[in-house]
Amino acid sequence: MINIGIIGASGYTGLELIKILINHPKFKINYIATTEGSENITNLHPSLENVFSCEVKKIDLKNVKNYCELVFLALPHKTAMAYTKELLKDGLKIIDLSADYRLKIENYEKFYCPHEDKENLSHAIYGLPEYFRDKIKDAKLIANPGCYPTASLLGILPFIDYIEDNSTIFIDAKSGVSGAGKKLTETSHFVTINENIFAYNPISHRHSPEIREKIEILKEKNIKTLFIPHLLPVTRGMLVSIYATLKTTINPIDILKNSYKDEFFIRVRENPVDIKSTSGTNFCDIYAKCDENSLFISSAIDNLLRGASSQAVVNANIMYGFDEKLAIPIISYVP
Amino acid sequence: MINIGIIGASGYTGLELIKILINHPKFKINYIATTEGSENITNLHPSLENVFSCEVKKIDLKNVKNYCELVFLALPHKTAMAYTKELLKDGLKIIDLSADYRLKIENYEKFYCPHEDKENLSHAIYGLPEYFRDKIKDAKLIANPGCYPTASLLGILPFIDYIEDNSTIFIDAKSGVSGAGKKLTETSHFVTINENIFAYNPISHRHSPEIREKIEILKEKNIKTLFIPHLLPVTRGMLVSIYATLKTTINPIDILKNSYKDEFFIRVRENPVDIKSTSGTNFCDIYAKCDENSLFISSAIDNLLRGASSQAVVNANIMYGFDEKLAIPIISYVP
Amino acid sequence: MINIGIIGASGYTGLELIKILINHPKFKINYIATTEGSENITNLHPSLENVFSCEVKKIDLKNVKNYCELVFLALPHKTAMAYTKELLKDGLKIIDLSADYRLKIENYEKFYCPHEDKENLSHAIYGLPEYFRDKIKDAKLIANPGCYPTASLLGILPFIDYIEDNSTIFIDAKSGVSGAGKKLTETSHFVTINENIFAYNPISHRHSPEIREKIEILKEKNIKTLFIPHLLPVTRGMLVSIYATLKTTINPIDILKNSYKDEFFIRVRENPVDIKSTSGTNFCDIYAKCDENSLFISSAIDNLLRGASSQAVVNANIMYGFDEKLAIPIISYVP
Amino acid sequence: MINIGIIGASGYTGLELIKILINHPKFKINYIATTEGSENITNLHPSLENVFSCEVKKIDLKNVKNYCELVFLALPHKTAMAYTKELLKDGLKIIDLSADYRLKIENYEKFYCPHEDKENLSHAIYGLPEYFRDKIKDAKLIANPGCYPTASLLGILPFIDYIEDNSTIFIDAKSGVSGAGKKLTETSHFVTINENIFAYNPISHRHSPEIREKIEILKEKNIKTLFIPHLLPVTRGMLVSIYATLKTTINPIDILKNSYKDEFFIRVRENPVDIKSTSGTNFCDIYAKCDENSLFISSAIDNLLRGASSQAVVNANIMYGFDEKLAIPIISYVP
Repeated sequence: MINIGIIGASGYTGLELIKILINHPKFKINYIATTEGSENITNLHPSLENVFSCEVKKIDLKNVKNYCELVFLALPHKTAMAYTKELLKDGLKIIDLSADYRLKIENYEKFYCPHEDKENLSHAIYGLPEYFRDKIKDAKLIANPGCYPTASLLGILPFIDYIEDNSTIFIDAKSGVSGAGKKLTETSHFVTINENIFAYNPISHRHSPEIREKIEILKEKNIKTLFIPHLLPVTRGMLVSIYATLKTTINPIDILKNSYKDEFFIRVRENPVDIKSTSGTNFCDIYAKCDENSLFISSAIDNLLRGASSQAVVNANIMYGFDEKLAIPIISYVP
Repeated sequence: MINIGIIGASGYTGLELIKILINHPKFKINYIATTEGSENITNLHPSLENVFSCEVKKIDLKNVKNYCELVFLALPHKTAMAYTKELLKDGLKIIDLSADYRLKIENYEKFYCPHEDKENLSHAIYGLPEYFRDKIKDAKLIANPGCYPTASLLGILPFIDYIEDNSTIFIDAKSGVSGAGKKLTETSHFVTINENIFAYNPISHRHSPEIREKIEILKEKNIKTLFIPHLLPVTRGMLVSIYATLKTTINPIDILKNSYKDEFFIRVRENPVDIKSTSGTNFCDIYAKCDENSLFISSAIDNLLRGASSQAVVNANIMYGFDEKLAIPIISYVP
Repeated sequence: MINIGIIGASGYTGLELIKILINHPKFKINYIATTEGSENITNLHPSLENVFSCEVKKIDLKNVKNYCELVFLALPHKTAMAYTKELLKDGLKIIDLSADYRLKIENYEKFYCPHEDKENLSHAIYGLPEYFRDKIKDAKLIANPGCYPTASLLGILPFIDYIEDNSTIFIDAKSGVSGAGKKLTETSHFVTINENIFAYNPISHRHSPEIREKIEILKEKNIKTLFIPHLLPVTRGMLVSIYATLKTTINPIDILKNSYKDEFFIRVRENPVDIKSTSGTNFCDIYAKCDENSLFISSAIDNLLRGASSQAVVNANIMYGFDEKLAIPIISYVP
Repeated sequence: MINIGIIGASGYTGLELIKILINHPKFKINYIATTEGSENITNLHPSLENVFSCEVKKIDLKNVKNYCELVFLALPHKTAMAYTKELLKDGLKIIDLSADYRLKIENYEKFYCPHEDKENLSHAIYGLPEYFRDKIKDAKLIANPGCYPTASLLGILPFIDYIEDNSTIFIDAKSGVSGAGKKLTETSHFVTINENIFAYNPISHRHSPEIREKIEILKEKNIKTLFIPHLLPVTRGMLVSIYATLKTTINPIDILKNSYKDEFFIRVRENPVDIKSTSGTNFCDIYAKCDENSLFISSAIDNLLRGASSQAVVNANIMYGFDEKLAIPIISYVP
């Protein structure tokens, strides 16, 4: 058994990591920590009563190496990089669920804040398994992708070669509220969200450069994207509708099936996808349809799992040479 | 007082018509009918108890003229044209909420069924007040617009001149479930819709030609559109997100404000719009933002009011030379 | 026209007061104030754009009398009594939507805090129109009832004489989230509420003594009640299910119909009531059914309207000798 | 591996059975059947794509014994007894999720229809493990409890001895919509349920005699109950609020903890329970509080799991002498 740690266990993604890892046959949760600590994880997450019991330590970076060799960081950006820097020095492997190591330095500093760990940023691996599997195998530091980029990239990438030069890819993304975390804000208030929908941070959302940058890296093509996220009156789930202009007519389902024929966690669907069928799982369901040279792609994930915690555990499985599917949730919440 | 009638009072749009018209100072509901009739409208709509009481007649087309001079038809397509044909012969004025008189004959027959009232179709007026006000004044037969076309056209039309030739306008529409009516179907089942979202009839939805055709008529420009409707887990409301490629850089808020400076029922917003603020009203709220030559427009309406019944009463107000705002709901359901 | 003021216009009940009063034919909103003031009420409530425009003053108690003669206070408890004391001195009439004048001094101080305006407390009138109409007519200070007591009392009171002595009346109340106001708390977070339901403050909720005390005053009977509120995943609406043990068999619908035969705002229903039919209105819908000596009563209201703002305007109508129904909303949000 | 079968796999409880049993280490799904059959279970449940693949047979009762030795029946009442009669003759063991074997003959025939398998009814075992574990061990036919009785009985039974003679236990139950199955009815339409709550079948619901009868059997006490179910705007979950009058003052949490100290699937909570914490699991969470001689009990379950399918698999585990917890879901859907 490999001992692993989770730092930042009080939020939604921390909880989801625990829920997955308590059933993992090769990883053992041997360290859980938050800023304040707690007598037991069930105090932070009462739904774990009778399921998992464990002291929550107060974070002490110097001690982490005594408990585990791989650490999942479920922390806000900026804190994550400060911790990563120290933990890597102690020889620990890191899977960072924050944004801190996802972007090139210039994009990071433009959209977030000054980066204080440029050294490690330069060799962090972007943890989108379908496209970076080989590099993940040998990684010491994984930048776990954002939820919007995960759903968007998995939908778009198979089609990049067919897209008209100089055209814009329009990404209309719809997310459940859990994506914004536990923080109390006007946009997490029930009354703001319920019986409602609206775009937020249109065009300027921080996940936009992440999508563009990865397309460029993977396809060596500079693509314009316009990214508009919307908040849905649902807790969990993300649907990304992508619109693009093609150079030529294509059979989009064939292209998807070809691209992902060996990928267990991607289900190419012949009918429009829905978020509920992916809720509770690491699946990304994708559908696409054309009208002449106009392309519509619809991609659905569970924002907390494929968009965060289960994808993180898939990355851990790959890092240790285990079967990618080990302990990864695949049974949806339907109905 | 002008006597009016409502045929098809058992559904959602019939109910909304009643809710508006019972407070109208110039129109009097003097005839309500359904296929089967009912002792009292409160049997069909218990929420009207203590509010409005009225016998529901069994439809008898020959008698309608004895009760009223203007009739709202809240009926399925095909039935609507059969009734319209007869009622116009009797000198009645008609506002038809179905799709039967919205499209040119060739589009109608392609997307619906053979048209059996071509004569009247040729002179029906499309009831989008902001763009067809002058013709509505003298109309005998109004084709009340669909909900998706209403939200889409009001958002797009101000920008048509700026849109790149041969580019596609992508319309990502999200509708509450009431848009599909009271019918029991798998996609109206609570469990299918709740905590979920999905596209339906992608590309092939019948409202797509309605949008394209009206742009062509109004702007004399043949525009490609790709229309994708989605079902939201909300009862009421519609948000349409529109994506287009521009010829030039523009200030989209200025363009909207200019286009609609005299339009009371359109609120140009400087922040992204939400459906809740329009629920219960005839307002269409519009926001737009550009990134270089990429344009995002967001348009919100109440699908049952601006997308059906309150727009119908605005049309009636115009037909009779009344103030357009007479009895039209403007106070939203917020919170 | 009577000039009225609203102090505390930033919350939900303040907004609902505005929405009702802008259409009132006898009351004119001549003063709106909040702690901080604002250039325009539409900054606080964007849904009022094109509907109502008005400066929001910073509260200055000395000036209120220059603007109006009746003031609605939509403020937290404790602040309300401090303001009321001053405003009554200036000869203003007050309708207080807080809890400050609802209870006898001993109950108030037990469940809230020390009372600092005992003088006025002793002559405040409890504004439940069906039961205190005569006293409301001449009141200077109305304590507008809580939402839970409104729904509970209207349901229970007709049956008090039939209830077994020394038995307990069990009140299982279910409220939409708007009842807790705009404050950001863990229990107003969308993720806590959505797809969930739970009791809160069981037995010890502050509305419990309000119910008991009014029964005692009206029926001169000391009744035991057990009050359990639950939070529902809905924005608006309240359903109160009441359980009691009877001395004798009764026909509960007859009793309700008799008790409320002259009450326009109470609809006795022969089928179980639902909250949606009352949403947007001042109606209280009531249903009851017995099984031998066991009684079930179901009472539904809109918590923000009949449970707060529209009831407050009914009280104002009564105070000024107007028709109670003047400007009071009766058309529900159904569907 | 024991071969098992599922007859009636198209509904929600059939799907939940599959989701549990595909991961069971001792039971193997070797037969799945519906009235019409289907090429693959993924046609009926697309969320099972990549998870489980299996032909769905057209039901042929004569053949079932060739595929399995234990059969779960997820069928409507009446059909279930016709099948059970035949399958038991073939030596199969049956866990019936319908109501057909839950009640004494006189109660069954009063609330359902004439019973056509009285012979087997007389020896069927009621599958509430905490109270009938010993009999379940040797059973050939299990009547799996209804969801309302499961949540109600687990909450009430520990307190029966303390309840005042001749008093009524009031049960205010709130269920998610999935409890009513996939059938399209007015009360499963999204618009009827959303932003709403209402009682249905008050007093006369069929689960009422099931609760009363089991209390009588287990506690040899004739207890009056009044059962009122409500429909909640949630898909999954059930909260039952129980009100009773006590003979004496008690410490209800102590009583619960004592009663269930050895029961893994019951979590006695010191704060009010919520349905979300039990969603996705077999747990029943229970809380209770008194005010003098008035008792409030709050009991939460997942209506499809503890209220149907996971309880059925627990029963199967017991029948075969396996650990009760084998493959039973305990990780909730929170957040």
